[in-house]
Amino acid sequence: MINAVKREIPESLFEKTGLKPYVPGENEKLLPRSTETFAERSKNNNKITSFEEAVKAVGLKDGMTISFHHHFRDGEHVVNYVLGKLAEMGYKNLSVAASSLTNVHEPMIEHIKNGVVTHIETSGLRGKLANAISHGLMDDPVIFRSHGGRAAAIAEGDLHIDVAFLGASSCDPYGNANGYTAGGEETGACGSLGYARVDAEYADKVIILTNNIVAFPNVPCAIPAKQVDYIVEVESVGDPAKISSGATRFTKNPHDLLIAQTAADVIEASGYFYDGFSMQTGSGGASLAVTRFLRDKMIAKDIKCGFALGGITAQITSMHEEGLVKRILDVQTFDSVAAESVKNNEFHHQIDAVSYASPYDKGSAQNQLDVVILSALEIDVDFNVNVLLGSDGVIRGAIGGHPDTAAGAALTIITAPLMRGRLPTVMKKVNTVITPGWDVDVLVTDHGIAVNPARPEIEERLRGAGLPVTTIEALQQEAERLSGVPDDLPFGDKVVAVVTYRDGSVIDVIKNIKD
Amino acid sequence: MINAVKREIPESLFEKTGLKPYVPGENEKLLPRSTETFAERSKNNNKITSFEEAVKAVGLKDGMTISFHHHFRDGEHVVNYVLGKLAEMGYKNLSVAASSLTNVHEPMIEHIKNGVVTHIETSGLRGKLANAISHGLMDDPVIFRSHGGRAAAIAEGDLHIDVAFLGASSCDPYGNANGYTAGGEETGACGSLGYARVDAEYADKVIILTNNIVAFPNVPCAIPAKQVDYIVEVESVGDPAKISSGATRFTKNPHDLLIAQTAADVIEASGYFYDGFSMQTGSGGASLAVTRFLRDKMIAKDIKCGFALGGITAQITSMHEEGLVKRILDVQTFDSVAAESVKNNEFHHQIDAVSYASPYDKGSAQNQLDVVILSALEIDVDFNVNVLLGSDGVIRGAIGGHPDTAAGAALTIITAPLMRGRLPTVMKKVNTVITPGWDVDVLVTDHGIAVNPARPEIEERLRGAGLPVTTIEALQQEAERLSGVPDDLPFGDKVVAVVTYRDGSVIDVIKNIKD
Repeated sequence: MINAVKREIPESLFEKTGLKPYVPGENEKLLPRSTETFAERSKNNNKITSFEEAVKAVGLKDGMTISFHHHFRDGEHVVNYVLGKLAEMGYKNLSVAASSLTNVHEPMIEHIKNGVVTHIETSGLRGKLANAISHGLMDDPVIFRSHGGRAAAIAEGDLHIDVAFLGASSCDPYGNANGYTAGGEETGACGSLGYARVDAEYADKVIILTNNIVAFPNVPCAIPAKQVDYIVEVESVGDPAKISSGATRFTKNPHDLLIAQTAADVIEASGYFYDGFSMQTGSGGASLAVTRFLRDKMIAKDIKCGFALGGITAQITSMHEEGLVKRILDVQTFDSVAAESVKNNEFHHQIDAVSYASPYDKGSAQNQLDVVILSALEIDVDFNVNVLLGSDGVIRGAIGGHPDTAAGAALTIITAPLMRGRLPTVMKKVNTVITPGWDVDVLVTDHGIAVNPARPEIEERLRGAGLPVTTIEALQQEAERLSGVPDDLPFGDKVVAVVTYRDGSVIDVIKNIKD
Repeated sequence: MINAVKREIPESLFEKTGLKPYVPGENEKLLPRSTETFAERSKNNNKITSFEEAVKAVGLKDGMTISFHHHFRDGEHVVNYVLGKLAEMGYKNLSVAASSLTNVHEPMIEHIKNGVVTHIETSGLRGKLANAISHGLMDDPVIFRSHGGRAAAIAEGDLHIDVAFLGASSCDPYGNANGYTAGGEETGACGSLGYARVDAEYADKVIILTNNIVAFPNVPCAIPAKQVDYIVEVESVGDPAKISSGATRFTKNPHDLLIAQTAADVIEASGYFYDGFSMQTGSGGASLAVTRFLRDKMIAKDIKCGFALGGITAQITSMHEEGLVKRILDVQTFDSVAAESVKNNEFHHQIDAVSYASPYDKGSAQNQLDVVILSALEIDVDFNVNVLLGSDGVIRGAIGGHPDTAAGAALTIITAPLMRGRLPTVMKKVNTVITPGWDVDVLVTDHGIAVNPARPEIEERLRGAGLPVTTIEALQQEAERLSGVPDDLPFGDKVVAVVTYRDGSVIDVIKNIKD
């Protein structure tokens, strides 16, 4: 045959190679040539469109799964915007797979009542939405997943996302999207987009929402244009002032400071404090304060941290800038100082949630941790930890990376006060198991330290250092002596939520709470 | 049922949700907990292994497709090492899918003769290997793909890679791999790993070869650990001194300099030279020299380049450092100065080959080009260009990003001398079509300029600027007058290679050459 450029191609070739001849216009995916300037193309580009057009173009249908990230935490604006619009458009029976949900997501209650949202997968629930769900609002139980568990479920196809709606602090006309504005003025930065990157990589369709369209190429960036289908301009994707709230504020509570000092002493004596060691400090007043005390010990002993992982705070970035922490791996940025750092510091690196905490990859970062400091709402004599369910039986927390990092770290330390108000933290049996006791090594309270009997070498080292080691049973009994035996909570029979372990298997269920 | 953490889970839940109960040890993919320190884990980690063990562990079998990158160009060491080892291990009938092959790959001739390699897909072939293939060495024709075409074929599954063998200038014990050593001493940097990143993302299995194992986490990096199966330590993956050779040397030839000056004048007058414009200069003496002349014009008119794309040279990085080029998108680094720049300059950004030149994504960078400067071995009166086949009918070049950027840019300029020695460059009909004439706008020679009749507005602008515009036919006749009519080349009947267009369709074939 003679092809479109007048070349003779032997017919036998096509059968032999499986290739096709070039015929102009035949391959509809091949974009036609344009003589518009780059500047004109950026303006006339139909990847940027209205919300309604984007939703229609990606083919969203009733019953599909849509996803969101929570990098703005209590300042998050995208979920309410998108669900409000989808409700107006008449969508029903949607499954919401969010990396987490917070206090601001109260409007979802109405969408559940109206049948717009019929299923939720999330790491956490708080506020009135959590309260309503705890009281039995939904027919389908909420599926709670850890950050690593969610990432793995998405990567393995167990949690399939049809359309991801991802807020970005900057995005160019083709979809290169980021949690800050590299080389430009910020209009509201959240820092790392670590959770969102997994959605962008694996969702069938991706719509970026942004209040800040910048010039191509918006690099470096978290989400590459090749993963993005449409871009929608909105007034706001989030309020950065509300990222750092509640769980990430620095403590002034003397009990918390005592616990933090003790936890730093535990790390020092544990055998895991050496030049090049790695660490993660979770959210929660005491566990964040550990960093402050650890810093003094690092300077005194001339020890540098090889890398710090996790939700990243101003304390960690300041230690990075003074050379005490060599690398930061940031899946989620916990305050605006840290958001500035991920923008400006080459070795403050944003990683996606699979690289952070996949339970299946020995190379995921949580599997390189020497030490993790985590908090607890409740911990029991088997060292099982609850960070999700309040003492009143109402959901008010988030799994986060708790079970992931607990399992990955060589030394998992839980910090918690023995009592909160008149209620015990150390119990015979937690109301909900989030992190199983076999992944927990040390409990540090304001009434002493307990070491998991599975780690006798740690107990020996802590005793050797003169630290106040007791047993978990003694702590539980002391709590009970001070507070009395807590009443059983008035749970009903309806399963309102399922708690999954890192691999998506069921580790616990939460039943409805009666008033 | 009562599960492993002593929680009662209603059996009905499993049917309702499709979830499974957590049973310790049941999910074999879930890694067991380790109490080793981070430092110990890095040392004892079995992701780093011997070549033979890695090959066995990934399950390489006869008949499979293996892939390589050519970021070290003439200094490339991995292909010869891997094929030598695989030949020793007894492998046969392998398909080699390299991003390109160069002069150093002569040893592959023996592997083809011995049946170790029976099929090749590449962007280019040079030297004795190319000569042998041109003379009919292989039964199966070589499939030539452009860089964008290869990336798209891999991403779409048309070119399936079973095992990628990717050389890296640094790699940590879990596979975070890069073309330089961020924050450390270089032991041989190649710069961007843009082509290799596509292989890493889509290959079934990935083995990194490196001479430089660095501490975890090796970030920022081109290839994330989650895509890597094994790491093999080798003496050398490449010689950076040989990256810049031949096609990327700066010219001192007066003909080339005249052509470069004229091409810069063409850009200035074309309507595509404005503040924020975008450009790519290919390899080849004259097209690289255009950058030098363009720089003067940019300074004179206070015009900045929004982004420069492509194979990146020291000229481009120096303009970036003086603020004339705002962003660099680097799929391949052409010299050691540019390799230093990608390491040190935040906005010298390495992109993968899909983001560079996918023909299917309007957001790929080549689709944002105002101007591309490309070279030609031959160009004909239909503006068809050949950059692959020498004037003797022997393969001696590479498609590279030629047809990708020609199609993507708003203005595609070919620079070429009218004659090379006694042989014409402008011909009635090129011996092989690599880039079809409809993707070419302007030819700049040392005997004048020809504009594709499809772009009358460009011809008008160039004439308006007093540039020496003639016709492609006049240039062809002048060449013929000076050199005579070239003899037909002594091709045989065997198809030794197939040239594909950007979408993988056949645009031409190359037949064997007789001596």
